Amino acid sequence: MIEVVNDLLAYDGLKIIQRPDMFNFSLDSLLLGYFAPVNYKTKEIIDLCTGNAPVAMYLSLRTEERIEAVEIQEEVFDLARRSIEMNNLEDQITLYNRDLIGIHKQLGVNKFDLVTCNPPFFKLLETSNLNKNEYKTIARHEIAASLEDILIESKKLLKNKGFLSMVHRPERLSEILTLMREHCLEPKTIRFVYPKKGTTANTVLIDAQKGARVGLKVLEPIFVYENGEYSDIVREVFHYKKTML
Amino acid sequence: MIEVVNDLLAYDGLKIIQRPDMFNFSLDSLLLGYFAPVNYKTKEIIDLCTGNAPVAMYLSLRTEERIEAVEIQEEVFDLARRSIEMNNLEDQITLYNRDLIGIHKQLGVNKFDLVTCNPPFFKLLETSNLNKNEYKTIARHEIAASLEDILIESKKLLKNKGFLSMVHRPERLSEILTLMREHCLEPKTIRFVYPKKGTTANTVLIDAQKGARVGLKVLEPIFVYENGEYSDIVREVFHYKKTML
Repeated sequence: MIEVVNDLLAYDGLKIIQRPDMFNFSLDSLLLGYFAPVNYKTKEIIDLCTGNAPVAMYLSLRTEERIEAVEIQEEVFDLARRSIEMNNLEDQITLYNRDLIGIHKQLGVNKFDLVTCNPPFFKLLETSNLNKNEYKTIARHEIAASLEDILIESKKLLKNKGFLSMVHRPERLSEILTLMREHCLEPKTIRFVYPKKGTTANTVLIDAQKGARVGLKVLEPIFVYENGEYSDIVREVFHYKKTML
Repeated sequence: MIEVVNDLLAYDGLKIIQRPDMFNFSLDSLLLGYFAPVNYKTKEIIDLCTGNAPVAMYLSLRTEERIEAVEIQEEVFDLARRSIEMNNLEDQITLYNRDLIGIHKQLGVNKFDLVTCNPPFFKLLETSNLNKNEYKTIARHEIAASLEDILIESKKLLKNKGFLSMVHRPERLSEILTLMREHCLEPKTIRFVYPKKGTTANTVLIDAQKGARVGLKVLEPIFVYENGEYSDIVREVFHYKKTML
């Protein structure tokens, strides 16, 4: 198995260990890390479906608080563990190699201010064209946890008025909003990401607040490319530094 | 009561009779008229909450088919009737002065290819700061019909695979999507309208299809103003002519 060490961001800062045969981190994770609602009141943070921990590491640039991170696949967890050690983030990020379902029993109910999650995007249908690579399959398809499993667990983990911040595919937006509301997670802000002008959105960032009242804001769209180059906002995501705190 | 005759669009074409003391037509109606899914297969069309009929009249530019239009308020219906006569559209647009609830009993179930609706945007809450003007209150608040009433009626009116095309406020998006799905109207395309760059969306256009499978497209955003002037797409909405058919 070949491993590579990449920069997490567009400068010589955080490093991330990847394996080309696994599901490697993508812009989705960086956008989630950048846009998740973190402020001075955000004390307890957990990242579900952490993979090789790009979201948790990104969040370490935005807060000094401790971050819990959960990954079910042992080999992927191992990459995350070594990435975190390589960046000397062991004191801030605690990893759990386990199923996210039921983790509130280990870590506590009504405890977290923020749950982040870059989940598997695809429903598992009988007709699903599953990736033969098991790592990628679990990262992409709802095998280990469905969207609803993640929402149920998030609701238990979150304090009242705590936030779930998620990245997903617009194709599934109506299901996501419906299920969030069924589980007392009220969608509060949405932001769509478009590859460039003139295309449909291919990514959506959603923040839902536990026990909040109805009322949604649809924030300014993000275009990844503008005039053939990365847009200013995407450059800012790539260049985020701890000193920007 | 003062009445004025305005151009519906930005040229000397369709006229619309308005009363400044009533709720006058807005960009929302033109956007709905422009973006509603009309093609050569769209034979049976009905516009609910028609007001002084801006959507129905806009649609008359896009199709030769007959259009039914329903308005509950007698005085507003009267404006619509006279606007339609003034434009010689009586043969194409048939108006009904009645409650939309139950209109399927008069016009038929599983009949329509397209239902359009620019509904009252605000929920009626005990704390609602109601407009003292009854016309505006009914046009803006869910007094005569709630969102759910409209969806239930639309489902009955529509053929299987027919479309409901609606304009609404993004604040209520999660309710809208949830209720649509409860009533077998699957959201298929969404388009957000932003006043200009750097703002949140203030309008959303949604097409839902009766009995369709899950799967949503979020189309390119619309900015009303770009560089301080109407954007190209909004100019196109304002300048739409029958000859563009």
